[in-house]
Amino acid sequence: MTDMITTQALQRRLDTRTRPQGSLGTLEALAIQLGSVLQTETPVLRSPAAFVFAADHGIAADGVSAFPQSVTSQMLENYRNEGAAINVLSNQHGLDLTVIDAGVIPPPGARSARPPSWLAPGTRNFRFEPAMSAEQCTRAIETGRMFASDAIARGSNALLLGEMGIGNTACAAMLLHRRTDWPLADCVGRGTGLDDAALERKRQLLAESSARCPRVLSPFETLVEFGGFEIAMLAGVMLEVARHRCIVVVDGFAVSVAALLATEMDARVRAHCVFSHCSAEIGHRKLLEHLQAQPLLDLRMRLGEGSGAALAWPLIESTARLMTEMASFESAGVADRKRD
Amino acid sequence: MTDMITTQALQRRLDTRTRPQGSLGTLEALAIQLGSVLQTETPVLRSPAAFVFAADHGIAADGVSAFPQSVTSQMLENYRNEGAAINVLSNQHGLDLTVIDAGVIPPPGARSARPPSWLAPGTRNFRFEPAMSAEQCTRAIETGRMFASDAIARGSNALLLGEMGIGNTACAAMLLHRRTDWPLADCVGRGTGLDDAALERKRQLLAESSARCPRVLSPFETLVEFGGFEIAMLAGVMLEVARHRCIVVVDGFAVSVAALLATEMDARVRAHCVFSHCSAEIGHRKLLEHLQAQPLLDLRMRLGEGSGAALAWPLIESTARLMTEMASFESAGVADRKRD
Repeated sequence: MTDMITTQALQRRLDTRTRPQGSLGTLEALAIQLGSVLQTETPVLRSPAAFVFAADHGIAADGVSAFPQSVTSQMLENYRNEGAAINVLSNQHGLDLTVIDAGVIPPPGARSARPPSWLAPGTRNFRFEPAMSAEQCTRAIETGRMFASDAIARGSNALLLGEMGIGNTACAAMLLHRRTDWPLADCVGRGTGLDDAALERKRQLLAESSARCPRVLSPFETLVEFGGFEIAMLAGVMLEVARHRCIVVVDGFAVSVAALLATEMDARVRAHCVFSHCSAEIGHRKLLEHLQAQPLLDLRMRLGEGSGAALAWPLIESTARLMTEMASFESAGVADRKRD
Repeated sequence: MTDMITTQALQRRLDTRTRPQGSLGTLEALAIQLGSVLQTETPVLRSPAAFVFAADHGIAADGVSAFPQSVTSQMLENYRNEGAAINVLSNQHGLDLTVIDAGVIPPPGARSARPPSWLAPGTRNFRFEPAMSAEQCTRAIETGRMFASDAIARGSNALLLGEMGIGNTACAAMLLHRRTDWPLADCVGRGTGLDDAALERKRQLLAESSARCPRVLSPFETLVEFGGFEIAMLAGVMLEVARHRCIVVVDGFAVSVAALLATEMDARVRAHCVFSHCSAEIGHRKLLEHLQAQPLLDLRMRLGEGSGAALAWPLIESTARLMTEMASFESAGVADRKRD
């Protein structure tokens, strides 16, 4: 794909719309980004598709979450029954929602077959051994790619990404620590609501885990050692999106960590990412700054499951519509600044 | 109206929905506010109506804006032709948009009759004399009340407010200065895009204007001396809304100043106000803090015309829907935190 529409042309289009220059604030840079990625001065977002990747984590056995591990499979059921926040928001905005079981521990007594996306009953505990095999990691990335290419083939040019998995802020914090070398204290947060003692314990467990494998790792190796199936799939989605005229709406902390990994694997990913919000999870703000991202929302949320991406979706659609549908000063007969 | 639904009941409803406690961040306080104002645990926002009040300002003759005064009437025409940002956003979100000519200077040669809302060809220049008569101010407030009560009678329980008028950030800054006694430097900003020299000149003109009338003024008298027709009408809308189970979505700097005045006139107004965004206009952030408001968006916008209110609208609707439609932990069979 050769880019034909320049940033200059997009800026000119924006600056001839009937509003004071710069008056749309942060949305002006987003308008330029949408035009650049979709390669048009009149962007139209089509068939937005939301994906929530769910998986369990071996480290959860060490008690790194305020919720029991069984909540992952219970929430998967809640998504199926349309009872969760992401269901409500997807219905409100007409998002085509797909919830993917990337490797959730089946509830006791469950006999239903696992879907093809399912890799294992959760990762292994990365405090003692690699979270997954290289084969599992490759398969997770390919699965993510497949969901993205299917949605794009069906006509979508905007994918919204979320995740769910008890223990996965521990996993994401670990990945962030290893990719950036930032101190664990800057990467590890309260997740769904740990108290001070539990937070300190989470930090300690992650320090032990990191010490297990001190060597320098590639992004792929970092996923193998400390990853989660859902995070590898999210990275896979983004790697595929970077090959198309398509944007990806990044949710909270864990999806942003997946964006960091995917960007390291393929630098083209970054341009396709729209960062929906800055969450309350420690490390997220610093990571967004590191990625030079301007999140659209800053509501101190920490829910995950793509809720921030879905909440921010109308702002992204508004931005595309303003670029495409607003009159120009000339066509509207409105004076452009003072003539003196 | 006696309040029957307590904050405690609303908090309990929220805390039994399937998401970690507090994880919806700023939206949790909004959920409680919606439930309190609408007096229901399952709020539903109906027939949202957006109003843009437009007027001209005598002070504009002194050159306090980056745009010529004729832009007010040109933008009024642009709204009628569906070419402005607020048209695009209202269409996107299904907002019933009404643009009100509160006192715009007719374009040269225009022969069409002014609507009943029209008070005069702009206010007088408050540097030399009161901006309006007490009769005009009363009529402006009553006109705002009438638009609100009509919309509520037609079934709306959410009104979105915006304004347009070349020179009206000067007017709003003046009103803010006189109601708070904050230094003019903290109240006066660049509006639609003044440079440093023009900003300094704007401050100087407002200092002179304030000196014209040094006595302590009531909120109503402040509107008479330094107000704008659109700002008085906005205050009128809010005074009426406070008498009903209805919310009002406040746009940027000028509408927030109207909210300050309306709250001073009737303290019940404040509970009905949802503050949509913090604009780039200096003084807005300080005013929001003064009103103990948590704006939903912080996008450095400075467009006016209700654009911030319309952009934030889906977040407000999401909040109502999450409160109303999400499953409870019990109904979904999801464990609520760790049982240990």
